[in-house]
Amino acid sequence: MDIYTALIHHPVLDKRGATVTTAVTNLDIHDLARASRSYGVRGYYVVTPIAQQRSLVSRIAAHWRQGQGRQFNPVRAEAFETVRVASSLAAAIDDIAQETGQRPITVATGAAIDTGHISYEALRQRLLTEEGACLVTFGTGWGLTSDAMEAMTLRLPGVHAVDGRDGYNHLSVRSAVAIILDRLLGARAPAPR
Amino acid sequence: MDIYTALIHHPVLDKRGATVTTAVTNLDIHDLARASRSYGVRGYYVVTPIAQQRSLVSRIAAHWRQGQGRQFNPVRAEAFETVRVASSLAAAIDDIAQETGQRPITVATGAAIDTGHISYEALRQRLLTEEGACLVTFGTGWGLTSDAMEAMTLRLPGVHAVDGRDGYNHLSVRSAVAIILDRLLGARAPAPR
Repeated sequence: MDIYTALIHHPVLDKRGATVTTAVTNLDIHDLARASRSYGVRGYYVVTPIAQQRSLVSRIAAHWRQGQGRQFNPVRAEAFETVRVASSLAAAIDDIAQETGQRPITVATGAAIDTGHISYEALRQRLLTEEGACLVTFGTGWGLTSDAMEAMTLRLPGVHAVDGRDGYNHLSVRSAVAIILDRLLGARAPAPR
Repeated sequence: MDIYTALIHHPVLDKRGATVTTAVTNLDIHDLARASRSYGVRGYYVVTPIAQQRSLVSRIAAHWRQGQGRQFNPVRAEAFETVRVASSLAAAIDDIAQETGQRPITVATGAAIDTGHISYEALRQRLLTEEGACLVTFGTGWGLTSDAMEAMTLRLPGVHAVDGRDGYNHLSVRSAVAIILDRLLGARAPAPR
């Protein structure tokens, strides 16, 4: 499948459980672009309803894709080729449908999801063997609202450590994206020589 | 085993291959503390020879562990319990030896390592079944110097995507740490219901 990622800034929860719009951060753009590019993601959508924030993202991406940023670090330029903006999840889905000719399946992620619709291994098999497009979404703040999650095709369970390495699970979204892309698309470690 | 992580700011490479000391960044402290805590790591060492940078890290960690930071976000306080500083890798090793009663095995990581001494799966088995201590190290900048790598007990191969999802491999250190901890200590995804 063609894989896409989306970092959602609305609708997400704040620490009191209210629905809010979070601010875009520069480092999220960099880290997720680099992770997306490293795992062969076709497009990484920064999703925010705030037009000024979308134009900020576009300006940052343009800086690294061309001119001074590209000269300073051509490798970073390549990661920024994946970066796109969208005003909503629906707009990102429409964009992918236009690019690929079909609507993507959508995947919700979240630390608090204890029973997902699908395991990492099962989704990995689908991504690696089936045709079509898949959009894996990540919430900022305290995560996607439950309405937003319900609207997705599939839900992945939260990642956590093996039993006995304890139940704390408060990764940054940057860490969660990296881990989830690796579980879905990472090469299995080769045998040592 | 007791697992420890270290983020090395010296000796590491810059983009021209010179050996340098990088600056500590606030977000690396947060993201690696949260990932370390989530995977049951006993201590996360921020390693820099610059005393002022070590005291900066200690001040940031104290802010989140106690007082205002703890009130604002008690969950973050728990992650910061893992944070320690060391002036060198040798100092971190000595500290672990004192705490556990034995010298840890040391593990080098790096994007450019193509043939490691040990696979992720083999190291995972050791970590989960053997006694002792293990310090997994991560280089900032353009990675650990080859001398620093050679001095370690073991070298893990760089992480990358499955074949066909291409050869670009330029993750942030924040992403690399998260992925490697998950490969070594992450729960395998349960079957979907």
